[in-house]
Amino acid sequence: MPKRLIVIGADAAGMSAASEARRADPALEIVAYDRGGFASYSQCGLPYWIGGVVAERDQLFARSVAAFAAQRITIHLHHEVAAIDPARGRVTVRDLAGGREFAAEYDHLLLATGATPLPLALPGLDLAGVFALDVMEDAIAIRDHIARHQPRDAVIVGGGYIGLAMAENLTALGMRVRLVQRGEQLFGIIDPELATQINDALARHGVDLQLCDTVVEGCAGTHGRVEHVHTAAGEVPADLVILAPGIVPAVGLARDAGIVLGATGAIAVDDHQRTNLPGHYAAGDCAEVWHRVLRRPVWAALGTIANKQGRVAGRVIAGGESTYGGVVGTAITRVFDLEIGRTGLTEREAREAGLDAVATTLDSTDRAGYMPDNLPLTLRLVAERGTGRLLGGQAVGLAGIAQRIDVLATALYADLTLTDLTRLDLEYAPPFNSVWDPIQVAATSLLRKGL
Amino acid sequence: MPKRLIVIGADAAGMSAASEARRADPALEIVAYDRGGFASYSQCGLPYWIGGVVAERDQLFARSVAAFAAQRITIHLHHEVAAIDPARGRVTVRDLAGGREFAAEYDHLLLATGATPLPLALPGLDLAGVFALDVMEDAIAIRDHIARHQPRDAVIVGGGYIGLAMAENLTALGMRVRLVQRGEQLFGIIDPELATQINDALARHGVDLQLCDTVVEGCAGTHGRVEHVHTAAGEVPADLVILAPGIVPAVGLARDAGIVLGATGAIAVDDHQRTNLPGHYAAGDCAEVWHRVLRRPVWAALGTIANKQGRVAGRVIAGGESTYGGVVGTAITRVFDLEIGRTGLTEREAREAGLDAVATTLDSTDRAGYMPDNLPLTLRLVAERGTGRLLGGQAVGLAGIAQRIDVLATALYADLTLTDLTRLDLEYAPPFNSVWDPIQVAATSLLRKGL
Repeated sequence: MPKRLIVIGADAAGMSAASEARRADPALEIVAYDRGGFASYSQCGLPYWIGGVVAERDQLFARSVAAFAAQRITIHLHHEVAAIDPARGRVTVRDLAGGREFAAEYDHLLLATGATPLPLALPGLDLAGVFALDVMEDAIAIRDHIARHQPRDAVIVGGGYIGLAMAENLTALGMRVRLVQRGEQLFGIIDPELATQINDALARHGVDLQLCDTVVEGCAGTHGRVEHVHTAAGEVPADLVILAPGIVPAVGLARDAGIVLGATGAIAVDDHQRTNLPGHYAAGDCAEVWHRVLRRPVWAALGTIANKQGRVAGRVIAGGESTYGGVVGTAITRVFDLEIGRTGLTEREAREAGLDAVATTLDSTDRAGYMPDNLPLTLRLVAERGTGRLLGGQAVGLAGIAQRIDVLATALYADLTLTDLTRLDLEYAPPFNSVWDPIQVAATSLLRKGL
Repeated sequence: MPKRLIVIGADAAGMSAASEARRADPALEIVAYDRGGFASYSQCGLPYWIGGVVAERDQLFARSVAAFAAQRITIHLHHEVAAIDPARGRVTVRDLAGGREFAAEYDHLLLATGATPLPLALPGLDLAGVFALDVMEDAIAIRDHIARHQPRDAVIVGGGYIGLAMAENLTALGMRVRLVQRGEQLFGIIDPELATQINDALARHGVDLQLCDTVVEGCAGTHGRVEHVHTAAGEVPADLVILAPGIVPAVGLARDAGIVLGATGAIAVDDHQRTNLPGHYAAGDCAEVWHRVLRRPVWAALGTIANKQGRVAGRVIAGGESTYGGVVGTAITRVFDLEIGRTGLTEREAREAGLDAVATTLDSTDRAGYMPDNLPLTLRLVAERGTGRLLGGQAVGLAGIAQRIDVLATALYADLTLTDLTRLDLEYAPPFNSVWDPIQVAATSLLRKGL
C-alpha cells in the first residue's frame, strides 16, 4: 500500500513540497488541505493586482489545482485541519463548505501553515473598509471595496513590505495615502543611514508621513463603514484602511500537537525540515530557518525560503537526500521609483549579535558616472573587524540595487571577505557599471580605514 | 635618496599602480611616460563620446594630469619609451613634441604598454575616412571627420566590443551602418546558441549584416578620401570606415628587453605582477592574467583587469603585500537595447580546455512574469559533468543581464557548484525577480538531467 503525505497549507512551501515529492516518488499518495479558497499563488503579487499593475488575477497563480491533480496531487480547498494526532498519524479536517468534519491518516505530515497578520485588539477594526492583506480573499475584498466605494482617503498602518507596496499601489489608484507607523523608521530591516531615502521617496510621490512615529488607536465610522482612524497623534479621515502591522508564524496546530517551537516562536526544524516528531515536517513561513551569517535559526517569512524549504521537505519525505542551506538575510522591495535591498546583517543586527562590526556608506551610481542615464545608488557594507569577513550589505537607489544585493548574497553564502570582494571579476561596460563596482569601492574604503 | 618608479603607459594599469604606490610609499619618486597626449581616461567610453551620448570629452577622464601632479606623480605625455636597459635600470625616452631623446633611471619599472589594434596589411587603409579606434586621438579624429564630412555610409570591420559599440553609436548619428565580419558569429566570446540574438538586435535597428561571414580586402577612393570598401563578397559604398578587427598586446619593448612572454603572447607575470626580471613589473592589457576556472594564464584586455593588476603592482612596488586573484572570464556589452554578458567558460571553451562540460539554455524573464514590464532574458549555464562544478554562464536579453552575470562571476570566484546555485539566498520581489532566479531554474534543470 502506498504511503500517504498530508500537506497542511497549499501555498508556496506546501505545493513545492508536494511537487518535489511527486517527482521523487511516483507512488506516494499526496493530499493537501487549505482552509482558503486558493492554492499556489504569489502573495507578493497581491498589492500589484489591487493596484491594477497585474491585470488578471489568474496571472498570480503558479499552477492550477487541475494541474496539480494531473500529477496526482489532490488539493482540498476550504478544508481546515483542526487538529493533529501525531501518535496515530491522523489529522482532523473540517470541510468548511460542506460543514462536516472527518479524520485523515498520514505517514508523513508537512506543516506549511504559513504566517498570519499580527492581531490588533483595537476598537473599530471590524468596520467595513478596514482590511488586513494576507491572502487572496483579502485582496479580492479590497478590490471590491475600492470598486464599490471609490475611496479617496487611505490609511496604511505599518511601514514594512505590505505597507510600502500598498502605499505605492493605492497612490497609483489616485487615493490620498497616509502612513501610520510605530517609530520613525520605515522598513526597519535596513540601517537608519539609508532608510531616510524611503521617506523621501514616499513624500516625493505624495504619501503623507505625518503619522510616522505614532501608534494607531482604532477606527471609527457610521453605518458600519470606516470614516476615521484614531492615532496617538490625532485623527485622520479614512474610507479605506489597510492594516499591515507585521505577521506572526501560524503555529497553533503544531504547538497543540507537541511539535517543538524554537526561540523565535516558529517551528524548530533541522536542515532536512524535520521537526522533533518523526514523520512530521515543517516548511515555509511557519518554520524557522538557519541563518548562515548569524549561525543560528531565525524566523524570516519570505517566498524564496518557503519554496526552497518546501522542495527540500518534499525530497526528504519521498526518501531522497536533500538539505537546506539556510539564508543569509536577503530582502528587497521597491516603493515607487526607489529600490531598497539588504542582505546579511545590518550594523545594528551585527552589534546585537555580539559581533564587532564596522560599516561604511558610499554614494555612487548604478553605471559609469559619465553615462547620461546614470542613476544614484547608496551602498552600505558591514564587515567584521579583525577578520574582514563580510557581514552584510544594504543598497538604496533608483537602479542597480538587486544586482549589488545578489552579488553580496552570493559572497555571504561563500563566506567571502572584503579582500575577496575587491578581487571579484565583476562585469564592467559603461552602460552597466563603473570599472570598480560600488561594492568594490566600498570594500576598499573599509579596508583602507584599517580593520 | 628616494627610489624611483618609472611607469610606461599612463592609462588604467599605469596610473592605478602609480596611485597605489603613492598611497603606500609617500617617499617614492613616480614618473609616468606616455607617447599619447592623454592620460587616465576611459577607453571604453570613447564610442559613446563619438556618438554624443557622453557630451563632454572631459567626462571620460578619471583624473587630470594636474591632480596626479598634486600627489607628486609626474606624467610626461608625448614621451615614448624607445628602449629598456634592464641591467642598468634605465630607459631611453623620446620627447615626441620636443624632438629630443634622453635616458631616465629607475629602481622599479612598470610596463603598462597596453594593447594595439591588430595591424591589417590591406590596400587603401591610409585613405582619409578610415580609422582604427584605439586611443583618444583616434576618437578625436573620428569626431572631426564626422563633423566635417557628415558621412552617410559607415562600414565597421569587426563584430567585437568596439565594432558593436560603434554600430550603435554611428546608427544613432543617422548613418547607414554595414558590418563586415570574418565568420558569421558576432561577439565570438559567447556560445552560438545565444549569439543569434545579437544579429537580430542589430538588424532590428537597421544595421546591415549582409557582409557578416566575409573578409575585408581593402578600401578605395578618390582625392585621398575613402569611397568604397572591398570585401570577398563584394563592394559597398563607405565614407567612414572603422577598423576593429581585434587587438594584440603591445609587448615589443618588453620582448626587446628580455622580458619573458607567456604562451598567449602577452607578458608573463606572477600574482604580484612581477616579470622574470627583478624590479620589472607588468600590468594591464600588455600582461597575462590568471584564469581561475581554467587554472592557467590567459590574455584578456579589459579595464577591470588593468585597474586591479595596476593596484597590485603599485602596492608591491612600494614594498607592501598584495596579490592579484585572477579573472573568471567576465565580459559584458550592450548593443542598442540588447544586453550581452558572459563569465567563466562557454561550452566551446570548456571543451577546448578538455573539460567534460554540460550546458543548458533557459528562456526566462528579468522579473516576475506577471509584472507587465517584464523583459525577456536568455540564460545559459555550463557545468562540469560529475562534479557539478559551475564552469560558466552567459546571458542575453533586454534587462537584468549584468545582475545574473555578476552573481555567476561571484559564484565562479568561490568555486560553487550547481547545487550551491540552487541554494543561494538571492533577492526576490515581483518588480525584481521571480521567486527562483533564472540562474536557479537553469541550475535545477541541469541537475535534474543528471550529471
